[in-house]
Amino acid sequence: MKDSYETFSKVAGEERLQKQLAFSLEVDKEKSIFRQTSLSDHGRKENDAEHAWHMALMAYLLKEYANEPVDIAKVMIMCLIHDVVEIDAGDTYAYDNEGLKTQKSRENEAKERIYGMLPEDQRRDLVKLFDEFEENESPEARFAHVMDNLQPLILNFSNDGSDWQEHGVNAKQVFGRQGRSKDGSKRLYDLTERMILDQVEKGNLPE
Amino acid sequence: MKDSYETFSKVAGEERLQKQLAFSLEVDKEKSIFRQTSLSDHGRKENDAEHAWHMALMAYLLKEYANEPVDIAKVMIMCLIHDVVEIDAGDTYAYDNEGLKTQKSRENEAKERIYGMLPEDQRRDLVKLFDEFEENESPEARFAHVMDNLQPLILNFSNDGSDWQEHGVNAKQVFGRQGRSKDGSKRLYDLTERMILDQVEKGNLPE
Repeated sequence: MKDSYETFSKVAGEERLQKQLAFSLEVDKEKSIFRQTSLSDHGRKENDAEHAWHMALMAYLLKEYANEPVDIAKVMIMCLIHDVVEIDAGDTYAYDNEGLKTQKSRENEAKERIYGMLPEDQRRDLVKLFDEFEENESPEARFAHVMDNLQPLILNFSNDGSDWQEHGVNAKQVFGRQGRSKDGSKRLYDLTERMILDQVEKGNLPE
Repeated sequence: MKDSYETFSKVAGEERLQKQLAFSLEVDKEKSIFRQTSLSDHGRKENDAEHAWHMALMAYLLKEYANEPVDIAKVMIMCLIHDVVEIDAGDTYAYDNEGLKTQKSRENEAKERIYGMLPEDQRRDLVKLFDEFEENESPEARFAHVMDNLQPLILNFSNDGSDWQEHGVNAKQVFGRQGRSKDGSKRLYDLTERMILDQVEKGNLPE
């Protein structure tokens, strides 16, 4: 494939726009990074771009349940960009303990390369948003994390827990992963608990 | 498939949240509505969810080029929801003149059904945003339309115009379609012209 930056050399007119277009084209690759979550109705696995879109839209719809008031534009852009690093680092499944050990270093390298394609002010802005999401210490980051957990959960719930069954995941692991949702939304964590317990009760998820 | 609303009857706890979850699950179907634009590197066709994600992210990155100042949260949510109606109405290709004749009535029915799944205040909010996008008379709607045009254009440009070739589209048609981008961003319309003319010059798009 032609280099994304080179692609726009003749038409961009100035370097700033050329960099912005190169980044915009580069992130297209996120549509080819597949996750472990199946679409509703037991469809194919979803990809990172679809997941990010779904999270951002759900954030807008469910913002009234955030524990603290949130700047919804910030939450949405966090959702939209939080998986860009997976273009290089790949998706690490939430219950893949080996992969989780190296996830941080792989994603740091990816962050440098991919956000580094942008003009410097925008690189700083997006890295700041990405780091804020990762550190999970602002109301927006905490609420974006609720969406990162809840979006695949509603799909898997609608599919009778088939993603968990495929990977031999149990309720204790799911509670461990979903636990931090309570920091972003007590109400949606309450929903999360009900969904997990319902699946245990139905025999779709072992305790 | 089980009804989206019924899916959450036992766990939502109250009707408002049940409706919000049902809508959130329903829009998952947007990931199965495919467009006529190919991913970069001559990949498969992209779907509506991926297109919406890409548009919203590009809107954030390119907002400095809007002709008028825009509320970027509003632009992003417009981008995220503008194709929800295609779950029922299907994608109408920009150069499909027969399909374009019935597009409005098909999309109106879809709008009633799908946004109607939400609590009344949110139904009104999203229908207002959708209508505002369609009417194209606010700075946000005009800028969102620039993204709706530019996002597939950069993919097709990176693929040497293969989507146009597949459908026998000519430069006059592309200029017709892309023309209203100048109402949202003179700078990005200038880029658009350069991209189209470059493709004509290379023999990838007949005049």
